[in-house]
Amino acid sequence: MKHISLLGATGSIGTQTLDVIRKHPEHFTLESMSVGKNIELALQQVHEFIPALLSVQTKEDYDKLIHKVPNKTRVVFGTEGLEEVATAPKSDILVNAVLGSVGLSPTLAAIKAGKTIAIANKETLVTAGHIVTEEARRYNVSLIPVDSEHSAIFQALNGENIKEVDRLILTASGGSFRERSRDELEGVTVREALNHPNWSMGAKITIDSATMMNKGLEVIEAHWLFNIPYEQIDVVLHKESIIHSMVEYIDGSVIAQLGTPDMRVPIQYALTYPKRFESITNERLHLWEIGLLHFTKLDMERFRCIKFAYEAGKVGGTMPTVLNAANEIAVACFLEGRLSFLEIEHVIEQALESHTVIKKPTLEEIIKVDAETRAFIHSTIK
Amino acid sequence: MKHISLLGATGSIGTQTLDVIRKHPEHFTLESMSVGKNIELALQQVHEFIPALLSVQTKEDYDKLIHKVPNKTRVVFGTEGLEEVATAPKSDILVNAVLGSVGLSPTLAAIKAGKTIAIANKETLVTAGHIVTEEARRYNVSLIPVDSEHSAIFQALNGENIKEVDRLILTASGGSFRERSRDELEGVTVREALNHPNWSMGAKITIDSATMMNKGLEVIEAHWLFNIPYEQIDVVLHKESIIHSMVEYIDGSVIAQLGTPDMRVPIQYALTYPKRFESITNERLHLWEIGLLHFTKLDMERFRCIKFAYEAGKVGGTMPTVLNAANEIAVACFLEGRLSFLEIEHVIEQALESHTVIKKPTLEEIIKVDAETRAFIHSTIK
Repeated sequence: MKHISLLGATGSIGTQTLDVIRKHPEHFTLESMSVGKNIELALQQVHEFIPALLSVQTKEDYDKLIHKVPNKTRVVFGTEGLEEVATAPKSDILVNAVLGSVGLSPTLAAIKAGKTIAIANKETLVTAGHIVTEEARRYNVSLIPVDSEHSAIFQALNGENIKEVDRLILTASGGSFRERSRDELEGVTVREALNHPNWSMGAKITIDSATMMNKGLEVIEAHWLFNIPYEQIDVVLHKESIIHSMVEYIDGSVIAQLGTPDMRVPIQYALTYPKRFESITNERLHLWEIGLLHFTKLDMERFRCIKFAYEAGKVGGTMPTVLNAANEIAVACFLEGRLSFLEIEHVIEQALESHTVIKKPTLEEIIKVDAETRAFIHSTIK
Repeated sequence: MKHISLLGATGSIGTQTLDVIRKHPEHFTLESMSVGKNIELALQQVHEFIPALLSVQTKEDYDKLIHKVPNKTRVVFGTEGLEEVATAPKSDILVNAVLGSVGLSPTLAAIKAGKTIAIANKETLVTAGHIVTEEARRYNVSLIPVDSEHSAIFQALNGENIKEVDRLILTASGGSFRERSRDELEGVTVREALNHPNWSMGAKITIDSATMMNKGLEVIEAHWLFNIPYEQIDVVLHKESIIHSMVEYIDGSVIAQLGTPDMRVPIQYALTYPKRFESITNERLHLWEIGLLHFTKLDMERFRCIKFAYEAGKVGGTMPTVLNAANEIAVACFLEGRLSFLEIEHVIEQALESHTVIKKPTLEEIIKVDAETRAFIHSTIK
């Protein structure tokens, strides 16, 4: 029986993680969870899974909930609450499914506590990849990817020698606007951007897919997870999202992982690794039903956020921190109607250009740069 | 340094195996080799690689060659010669690249001598799969596939648990006539049939691809190599031959091996396994250059040889022996202009229908049924 801590239980990855736990009650039990603003759903989840620990965002939410949860569930809140959830004593594995760099400190706490980390929170690795991976090595803790692309690469590396890898090849659907030229991106609406062609995901990641910043973040995440230089990480457009990603080896062989687009498969794999359990769905991949798989070369001028990500990644230091923080605020402002779609990349570019990089930042420096960048973006938008 | 024995050095797989050995002289040396009718090429090869042992088919060839080979190379001939090559004392690995069930007895001899077997000779596994795999288990010898499809599956199984496999999915280019209906197959010529769209291979296997018997034989080969029931082996048409084959696991994940169609990649992998060496070619797979991958459902009525293979495989015993022997003779007769293309499957069907299966045949029974089937086909053709 694996005891699971779940950060971000009410989000898209969170609810699908609970689907996996629900499907295999003989193997998994929910030990602790944190939630965001969706208190209604949180209450349902707590009554179904009865975790030992629940963390909410604010004292107000705490007061609202405290008399409605099962007796066995202790309630905490705030940043400290997140860390308590991440380090719950009985827990074996932390599923980090929160959004944004807020996932960083509980991840580091869980690593220090020796928990296996199933990481869906790519911003944590983007903003502080060198610290997270160094700590994971020091405490001999595994970082298991949950993102479908990184799970695919992780699976394609099974039984292989990382030194024989020539290239990681991330596939990208191209997002909601893949058929549009740059000119046609002027004035697109939030609703249009939220309409992802293949995957059902949260709002932030869906916008990140439309700008392709999501793929840029994934390139940086792949760099840290697999310790591969940026020069050996490629992106290819593949609009069906059937091949989830690939690894090319020095002998020219390419190993790929394929499947229907269902996040519960990589989530489950992160929980069962190195084993595989029966699928949670009965849906199977039949390539003849799909018929055609398309592949197109990536145009970095069309999708400038990917270029920013490669550049920030290669510079390293605090540059990816700026990239990520600027993107988080820019996307939030877009969703609030305060920025146009193309302005997202514009303000990110400004933030990157005006930043003086710190080469080997400490955690404190990263947190400071993160906050400064957020303030910078707010000040440019007004 | 790995010492290699090579059966069928002048054939398509044989010459490509020598390409691989030539590319990595610090890792591989040719210890012994057998050749077929191409004595000219054999002499060139012997002078380049100077193996300790060479086997030719006949006493006449022996007499022709004996004064032309290097001093260090001993020459032998006939079936015994094949076995001597396969069991050369210094040899670590046997590459069995002969055509047809003639590869069976040297394979068994090499297994008894404890050699690793790199098997390109699928007829050996088709005709006597239960004996070959049982002997390999008994002598704790590895059977490593060389066929691109089986190498793909072998690679897709790396680091995985065979018990978690749900399905093997072999891809099939469809061969020279994949765009033709059955009616359009009447009266096709040998030259047309030899024109394979993707792979450069020997004549027999190219005809087997056109009839799709090749894929049928591969289904049986996969059954024996990976110990998977026929019900869990699928074939999908994929005309680009880029995905070389796949494994579907119980969680719905599919692992595939992809590459440019170059047999030297799986040949090299069989020799380097579990390691990978630098590619022998500089050609790399760039999916955006290919652009599209097509997949189509297999129609067993259009490609009846595959249906025969599944049926013979499921019946088991001597039935696959009949399938293979009938096919070998039918294809040889087609190449000689004595049978039309569609008559190939017709005579195979007759042979299967008139055979009374022996359930658990001994090696002697298999050899007898093999000979009887060849005689039967010759008698029906005249």
